[in-house]
Amino acid sequence: MDAPGKVTGTALYAADFALPGMLYGKVLRSSEPHARLVRIDAGRAARLPGVRAVITAADVPDVRYGGSVKDERVFARDRIRFAGQPLAAVAATSPDAAAAALTAIEVVCEPLRPVFDVAAALAPGAPLVHDAWASYTALPILHRDGNVCNRARIVVGDVERGFVEADRVFENRFTTSSVHQGYTEPRAAVAQWDSSGQVTVWSNTQLPFEIQTTLAEILQLPPSKVRVIVPGIGGGFGGKLRIGVEHFAALLAMKTGRPVKVMTTSEEELTAAYARQPATVAVKTGVTNDGRLTAREARLWFDTGAFAGSGPGVASVATLMLAGPYRIPNLLLEGFAVYTNKTNFGSFRAPSGPQANFAVESQMDIIADALGLDPLELRLKNIVREGEEGPTGQVLTAVGLEECLRRAADAIGWRDRRPEVGRGKGIACGWWTTTGGSSGVYVKVNPDGTVALNTGAAEIGTAALTGAAQVLAEDLGVQMADINVVSADTLSTPFDFGAQGSRTAFAVGNACRAAVADLKRQILALASKHLGVEESALALREGSVVGAGKRATLGELARISQASGGGLIAHGTFVAPPTPYDTKRVEGHVYPAFHSPSFHAHATDLSVDAETGEITIHRYVVAQDVGFAMNPAAIEGQIEGGVAQGLGQALSEEIVYENGRVLNANLTDYKMPTARDVPRVESILVQHPSLVGPFGAKGVGEPPNIEPPAAIANAVASATGVRITSLPITAEKVALALRERAK
Amino acid sequence: MDAPGKVTGTALYAADFALPGMLYGKVLRSSEPHARLVRIDAGRAARLPGVRAVITAADVPDVRYGGSVKDERVFARDRIRFAGQPLAAVAATSPDAAAAALTAIEVVCEPLRPVFDVAAALAPGAPLVHDAWASYTALPILHRDGNVCNRARIVVGDVERGFVEADRVFENRFTTSSVHQGYTEPRAAVAQWDSSGQVTVWSNTQLPFEIQTTLAEILQLPPSKVRVIVPGIGGGFGGKLRIGVEHFAALLAMKTGRPVKVMTTSEEELTAAYARQPATVAVKTGVTNDGRLTAREARLWFDTGAFAGSGPGVASVATLMLAGPYRIPNLLLEGFAVYTNKTNFGSFRAPSGPQANFAVESQMDIIADALGLDPLELRLKNIVREGEEGPTGQVLTAVGLEECLRRAADAIGWRDRRPEVGRGKGIACGWWTTTGGSSGVYVKVNPDGTVALNTGAAEIGTAALTGAAQVLAEDLGVQMADINVVSADTLSTPFDFGAQGSRTAFAVGNACRAAVADLKRQILALASKHLGVEESALALREGSVVGAGKRATLGELARISQASGGGLIAHGTFVAPPTPYDTKRVEGHVYPAFHSPSFHAHATDLSVDAETGEITIHRYVVAQDVGFAMNPAAIEGQIEGGVAQGLGQALSEEIVYENGRVLNANLTDYKMPTARDVPRVESILVQHPSLVGPFGAKGVGEPPNIEPPAAIANAVASATGVRITSLPITAEKVALALRERAK
Repeated sequence: MDAPGKVTGTALYAADFALPGMLYGKVLRSSEPHARLVRIDAGRAARLPGVRAVITAADVPDVRYGGSVKDERVFARDRIRFAGQPLAAVAATSPDAAAAALTAIEVVCEPLRPVFDVAAALAPGAPLVHDAWASYTALPILHRDGNVCNRARIVVGDVERGFVEADRVFENRFTTSSVHQGYTEPRAAVAQWDSSGQVTVWSNTQLPFEIQTTLAEILQLPPSKVRVIVPGIGGGFGGKLRIGVEHFAALLAMKTGRPVKVMTTSEEELTAAYARQPATVAVKTGVTNDGRLTAREARLWFDTGAFAGSGPGVASVATLMLAGPYRIPNLLLEGFAVYTNKTNFGSFRAPSGPQANFAVESQMDIIADALGLDPLELRLKNIVREGEEGPTGQVLTAVGLEECLRRAADAIGWRDRRPEVGRGKGIACGWWTTTGGSSGVYVKVNPDGTVALNTGAAEIGTAALTGAAQVLAEDLGVQMADINVVSADTLSTPFDFGAQGSRTAFAVGNACRAAVADLKRQILALASKHLGVEESALALREGSVVGAGKRATLGELARISQASGGGLIAHGTFVAPPTPYDTKRVEGHVYPAFHSPSFHAHATDLSVDAETGEITIHRYVVAQDVGFAMNPAAIEGQIEGGVAQGLGQALSEEIVYENGRVLNANLTDYKMPTARDVPRVESILVQHPSLVGPFGAKGVGEPPNIEPPAAIANAVASATGVRITSLPITAEKVALALRERAK
Repeated sequence: MDAPGKVTGTALYAADFALPGMLYGKVLRSSEPHARLVRIDAGRAARLPGVRAVITAADVPDVRYGGSVKDERVFARDRIRFAGQPLAAVAATSPDAAAAALTAIEVVCEPLRPVFDVAAALAPGAPLVHDAWASYTALPILHRDGNVCNRARIVVGDVERGFVEADRVFENRFTTSSVHQGYTEPRAAVAQWDSSGQVTVWSNTQLPFEIQTTLAEILQLPPSKVRVIVPGIGGGFGGKLRIGVEHFAALLAMKTGRPVKVMTTSEEELTAAYARQPATVAVKTGVTNDGRLTAREARLWFDTGAFAGSGPGVASVATLMLAGPYRIPNLLLEGFAVYTNKTNFGSFRAPSGPQANFAVESQMDIIADALGLDPLELRLKNIVREGEEGPTGQVLTAVGLEECLRRAADAIGWRDRRPEVGRGKGIACGWWTTTGGSSGVYVKVNPDGTVALNTGAAEIGTAALTGAAQVLAEDLGVQMADINVVSADTLSTPFDFGAQGSRTAFAVGNACRAAVADLKRQILALASKHLGVEESALALREGSVVGAGKRATLGELARISQASGGGLIAHGTFVAPPTPYDTKRVEGHVYPAFHSPSFHAHATDLSVDAETGEITIHRYVVAQDVGFAMNPAAIEGQIEGGVAQGLGQALSEEIVYENGRVLNANLTDYKMPTARDVPRVESILVQHPSLVGPFGAKGVGEPPNIEPPAAIANAVASATGVRITSLPITAEKVALALRERAK
């Protein structure tokens, strides 16, 4: 639905959004990673031409906000916790004037001893990133301790006994780097206050209702005094879930009495956004000689940076991912979110997925190699099957994993895994959740027979609202072209948990089904009266009610209802039913179970240049169990995009830190794959219908991002015999490893 | 609800609305009242600096549009029918550049023989304003014939027999002038097209859904491709019901590919808007010597100008008004809408009301004087009473007219009608409809316990949406401050018949009640589950559900529902039930009966300067049966504003034509009353509850506009003995009449 605007360049994004008389805001950010803030003097900046306001911590309510842990402030108040932390913001009549003012603000601070990574943060006697962590408001289920802002855990059976039962125990350690979501459009917001004391914020957030709540907290207002509207989003991928620049825009607009726009630069994106958490993963797995997994003890430490953000929740998902889609009777899995003096790393498409999957699926190949088993066979021996329990005790249904593995392997030509020297094939599989949460919709039938859908969810470029509209069109028997969508306005659209977690088509689609059920009742009753035919003899199809040789179009019926009944309007709601799980097995879990899980396998065929280490991908195959393929082209688009991003993380992307400062905070030195770098991706849509999703659909947006690092690592190992255990798998890393081995 | 923004000057009006990169549109209008259009040459204009587009009839679809009769085109194509008719439109980078371009367009035309008033238009052999009138698409119920585009009729009993039964028969003739609605904000629209081929128009229309339909007709698009949003309205009063400048903005935006704003000037408002139809009224009434009305034959001719517009419908309402709120057994009442070569006159707050009431109520005093009866007593003897039939046979309920008359008379000190020489008191009474039509609403409860209402009705400054919000707040047991309204967006809000006919609080309020009924079911079910208390033991009050010593706030319940049930959302619809009437009595009626009629009496006490004719109003009292006074302050505001407008029409306002051209097309020479001219208005709210309106409320917005001319005329006659039968009753007209009588 959103393609024409994007293809023709006329689509409106938040970055394009402007209001007459608008000022431009910019944010002064700390260059110190950890320091005591002694003094900020904005006097000179405030007097510069074009400058309308300069604000610092002194100008805003002294509020700590945050999702799981309330540990963040708008501006550093007394302590600076990362290089990039906001210290002040300026509104001026032009972006240049605002930028000039930033350089005129004087900041005096005294450096403090920093912790730059998880190891340093967990070392005995490490400085605390938040001295007062214990006094912060936080979700009570979290397990916090000093620099650990959550430890999530799953315990199943007796892991020690499981290792005793094993013939071999494998212990491996993996690391992954921080990667940016790489959305095309920077974070942008325009804020304007009205005379009723309401602020309206146009933002490219994925979660308008979340931003509404956070802004209300920051501004100390009831949420309904904050209206958040999403004019359009140029990509999100989890990087636009949390507050970005909306609060700066709102506070500057309040101060100046004028609309203010704030938009991030690439440098801000790479130093002070919500890039993926770097992780360290330790996996210990027991296995019998014939390849049966008996036990796993695994730990994943996320660097969450200076604030908890989504770290505590992602740590809990990580434990589910550490189990892998395998039947392992004994588990001790832990995920940690650890404070450091870096930016608040955050959610990125399938948060925790690639990090944990890289470790788990790399180790599966290590095990297979060690036991002389085919990696595919080892997987098939251990994967979960229909009706079996997942690690939390939830019963898994619609499990299409075997089909995914077999079809991906077949497609890549698995039987011939090492066709030539320096060439190899790799496979990796995984599972993922379709996030739950609540969706409500309003639906009306227009007098021309078209249909207007109001949803609180934003279209973030995944065609998920197209999916919801497809469900609506199908259920109501109208054409897709007849659906108009109004979306993502906290005032005019119903609550929605938001465009996250592959849930939009799934949940909004189901809410539409509920609305259509009501509409159909109204439509058939009205048609029966209008046509003089019993309701039982009538059916709704192709935009008309037909029966007993008579016919009334939806448009006619809507016009009749507008004239005599108030119009054909309805509402519908949906919330994913809770997934039963064993509460005794889990601790510290923000998301305790997988909703309508999806299953997938990726396989790749690549060559490695023995000299340079350069990797050339010949083929890349994805077999993904999508439940029901509502929109095959859009799903393939998601798979292709997800693989491209995954290959970026696998091969080239890394935000490089030195002493707490980013060395490559620009899009030249931060290496995202270009069109030249991305291979053609072959998609195989496997369909094991979900019992909950509309028409059996499962969430499809995030999964394609999970397996590429492991699939690449396994193929590189297959091609070269060299196992790379840290991301990205750059050519130089491979070349050095080859040389090391040659020694 | 809208007061703070208006008082502080921060409210957004359509006239303020702007988009980045917006162009400014202006319309070239004919200076000839009736002519053949030979040629338009826009070549030179198009080449002027800043000009981005010039469009004429050749650039737009050749479509005839209109409500009752499709007789109008965007631009004159071959024939010019009034001085002020659009010939071309220009879009340029500034309003000045657009204005300059207008003067560079060459127009060649050949004058035709015009008809400038009703008498000329009805004369045998008169030129036809529309030669091809018979071929136009029109509502089939209309009675059309040449320059008459509708004749509406009510026939009751036998009017000839009624005159025979009468002791005296009175025949009088009255004329009224055209007056402008005098809204503060000119008509304004901004249009912008998007890549999906949808045009969005921000306009200060009272009827966004009507403008959507008309624009779709003009642009030859399905209505859902036209989105109309009302950002705010600076007064409407019926003058912003029909398309104003929206189509020019949309067409210029299509041509230029940029947003375009068009706004009218005062000159355009006074020459080419929808000012009130001038009327000629002939009333013949039979009466017994003791003051019983036996028969009435009355005709009202509206000058509808060059197009039918709302004329045919208003002509039908006029017949109801000609009966007056009286029990007259024999009636022959006719209303005519007559084409002339003037602008398309239109609806103005209580359309037809002041014109018919001026005639009917003036004649009541003429009759009383002739029979030596007290005008109040004559009225009380003949007014309709509870349960009696109106002229169409509808049964009247909640008839508060006697109370209105007695309380207005008491308040003005009726017993002493001529307290001194040159001073007199006048009274006039009337009735009015609460317009029906359909309203739908969406309602949601926010997680802070506030409530968001989506309505398709616009707030036009009458506090009608405040009224609807009051109904919602009252029914749901929350505070008014907790209601947020989203209104008047054809895409995101449900259909509403619009802000017209005193219906908004009435109909939207009732739709809210339906939504609340559904919400209450949801809320009580959820609260019962949450609190563990039987639903029957729970009650909703003051924003909480309470029962069995327990309590849950609406906010809590909304949060629970968002987490576990999709959110507390609902929809509601309302349509006024049809008012039964005798179809045999009426012809040509677009609005065949009065819905939930209201009743009212105005009384005034004034002095007339014997020398200058100048009128000084000492007191002005309105007693209005409002059914139930939902918002007394707002109703008093409506009464005060309506009387001010009515006094303008009564005393000073007139669009003066000479040879089809307006002589006073500016706000200096067109005399609206200022704050200095308007007396304090005393309001008496009479409450006979409607059976249909929310809490018994009736429509209150239009009625105060109806009686001022008659009340003033009757008081002037009482003060001077001189009867003025044409509006406005200017000082010079009174002075001349006094001199005439002295002769």
